[in-house]
Amino acid sequence: MVSTSRLEAFSDGVLAIAITLLVIEIHAPEVGRGETLAHALWQQWPSYVAYLVSFLTIGVIWLNHHRVFTQVIGVDGPLLVLNLNVLLWTGLIPFPTAVVAQHLRDGGEPARTAAALYCGVLLVMGLAFGALFAWVTHTDRLLGRLPPPGVVRAARRRFMLGLVVYAAALALSWVSAPLAVALCGLMALYYAFDQASVPAEPEPRDQQST
Amino acid sequence: MVSTSRLEAFSDGVLAIAITLLVIEIHAPEVGRGETLAHALWQQWPSYVAYLVSFLTIGVIWLNHHRVFTQVIGVDGPLLVLNLNVLLWTGLIPFPTAVVAQHLRDGGEPARTAAALYCGVLLVMGLAFGALFAWVTHTDRLLGRLPPPGVVRAARRRFMLGLVVYAAALALSWVSAPLAVALCGLMALYYAFDQASVPAEPEPRDQQST
Amino acid sequence: MVSTSRLEAFSDGVLAIAITLLVIEIHAPEVGRGETLAHALWQQWPSYVAYLVSFLTIGVIWLNHHRVFTQVIGVDGPLLVLNLNVLLWTGLIPFPTAVVAQHLRDGGEPARTAAALYCGVLLVMGLAFGALFAWVTHTDRLLGRLPPPGVVRAARRRFMLGLVVYAAALALSWVSAPLAVALCGLMALYYAFDQASVPAEPEPRDQQST
Amino acid sequence: MVSTSRLEAFSDGVLAIAITLLVIEIHAPEVGRGETLAHALWQQWPSYVAYLVSFLTIGVIWLNHHRVFTQVIGVDGPLLVLNLNVLLWTGLIPFPTAVVAQHLRDGGEPARTAAALYCGVLLVMGLAFGALFAWVTHTDRLLGRLPPPGVVRAARRRFMLGLVVYAAALALSWVSAPLAVALCGLMALYYAFDQASVPAEPEPRDQQST
Repeated sequence: MVSTSRLEAFSDGVLAIAITLLVIEIHAPEVGRGETLAHALWQQWPSYVAYLVSFLTIGVIWLNHHRVFTQVIGVDGPLLVLNLNVLLWTGLIPFPTAVVAQHLRDGGEPARTAAALYCGVLLVMGLAFGALFAWVTHTDRLLGRLPPPGVVRAARRRFMLGLVVYAAALALSWVSAPLAVALCGLMALYYAFDQASVPAEPEPRDQQST
Repeated sequence: MVSTSRLEAFSDGVLAIAITLLVIEIHAPEVGRGETLAHALWQQWPSYVAYLVSFLTIGVIWLNHHRVFTQVIGVDGPLLVLNLNVLLWTGLIPFPTAVVAQHLRDGGEPARTAAALYCGVLLVMGLAFGALFAWVTHTDRLLGRLPPPGVVRAARRRFMLGLVVYAAALALSWVSAPLAVALCGLMALYYAFDQASVPAEPEPRDQQST
Repeated sequence: MVSTSRLEAFSDGVLAIAITLLVIEIHAPEVGRGETLAHALWQQWPSYVAYLVSFLTIGVIWLNHHRVFTQVIGVDGPLLVLNLNVLLWTGLIPFPTAVVAQHLRDGGEPARTAAALYCGVLLVMGLAFGALFAWVTHTDRLLGRLPPPGVVRAARRRFMLGLVVYAAALALSWVSAPLAVALCGLMALYYAFDQASVPAEPEPRDQQST
Repeated sequence: MVSTSRLEAFSDGVLAIAITLLVIEIHAPEVGRGETLAHALWQQWPSYVAYLVSFLTIGVIWLNHHRVFTQVIGVDGPLLVLNLNVLLWTGLIPFPTAVVAQHLRDGGEPARTAAALYCGVLLVMGLAFGALFAWVTHTDRLLGRLPPPGVVRAARRRFMLGLVVYAAALALSWVSAPLAVALCGLMALYYAFDQASVPAEPEPRDQQST
């Protein structure tokens, strides 16, 4: 009913917009009396950290999304709904990003709550992505050919790792909010470089379309 | 004059942006003295509800739009204008979403008016979509082949159902604003799962392009 | 150097975003003491008018842009710069739209200036589009085949009409700001229906790519 | 793993959104008592200058990005990360643009710091682009055929020129903030017209895909 190319195009659009909208949560600072702009800019460091971590995270979501869909040859109803669910949570990321940017420097309850909200949204996004991945790989109906079981198991382990790390970051946010956000950033970096190291294996649909 | 692929790409762009812009109406909350951030976040629940319902609604509009256009093989002038009309009302959705987010908790007249505005915009969007659908199916000039009459009738019934439900939600907003918004959410959920259950039938244009 | 398909995709992206960003200039209204939300929403009518007129205008710019580029087979350097110039002014439209939305109801100098700014930006956008069109049609190097002279002349007349009407609207804004904005809206409506009436003539590149 | 067409589509999306988001940093001005709207609009000239310079700059980044990728036939891991790095800094541009718009007229430390931030972000973006270009051209694995050494050297010289000019603008911002921003604008203009003068040479991938 829906071609994979249209589903990918729509998803790419949403991810590209979500990643670019992050910047509008970095506000040009108000400068107080007797304050320099340089100081006011510096005070906003949580905004820059939050931008960086969320940018990397959405970038990696795009990479993973793309990686899964290059192997998908058919779209069924549940996949549509599961994909919309991934986009729902990914599209929400600018909101906890803004909350972290505004409250990380406060310390105390606001910083902890902001970090917990941030890690919590990433955790739910990870669960949503995991559900999509599980549906796609539970049978070979949606894939041109099911990848070797070892490859699927390795991919599932990588997903599990992400969920465990996001859950750990969520717990860590009660101890140290900055460390929790930093852990989410490390996770995105790890995924980015892990993706980067995957050898380009020939893929059926890609060869045709290029 | 305008190819269907370009019309779809432009429409997809507008829908992807509208769905992603919804998040910027969820503001990082101001925390009052003696208030926790957790409490301030909790107080914003109408923002989350409104985000969820509008996200689902625009997601379903995209699904329906895509579904109609996979069968369209030609674009004429009235279709261009009717499609722009659908985008006009869909692109407007972030506005009533923000109004609901801000006033649903107020109760009284503001909540009722906000819900009525929300349901009203969805109703007009539904009428705009119905006009587009009626134009596309009134002859087989724009379709590769007219689907069997039973299929068209079933699709029209689904549209009618949507209009009736949105009108009912509009009326309900004078009784209970939260229920009216919830009804719009149920409508989107129903459409999403209804779409999901449609068997993938072979379609002429899709097979070629994939 | 740049393929027309990439240039069109980028331009489509910018136009789709500009048209969808219009909605964020319609703010959820603040409700004063003793005021109803319905009244506060009603007071914002210039926002709705400005949204409508700008939406139609950018929609028509997209239609015209698409119409010109379906016949373009090559992109040279000046065309790149001229196209960027069109996007620069079209991408600016949300700004005068916001100014009109905020000041049209004020009357007096603010309303006049807001309308003049609005019509002025549309006029410059029209000039930018005219320059692009003149470059594309000044020789058959960029077109598969130059359309019959009569068709080119008719298109130029339509462009001229637009420039004259926008200049008239600019002048009219000193007399009546609402009328000036309404004239811009009528212009967009005329273009939309004029486009709509053009018979679908077979076009070389379109047939191949679809 | 990732096809170049998907990478280009995602990058185009991010660049198109970043360039269009620039407009939301131009706010409809508040009009003080006894002030005309015309005066208030005029007072905002740094917003218009910043919009213009940033629009040209992102436009040129798109042109350069597109120019590099028309010759790329394969995407490996490091290229993915290097490309995400370019988008990270380009997507950030609306932020220093807003800072310049808000503080250029202040003079003194705020103006200098705003200009330095602006030029600094452009410099880092230039370095990020340079790294991507160096990776793409360091071997012929990612290119269909390595362009003649003279062409690569000329392109590298152009990149170097950009870096030198942005560094000079950064230094200049301590002397005159407006001049520093103007220098960045001249750089973008130079690139735009330089691009414009490149003759359309036949390129392997482009011919196929068009």
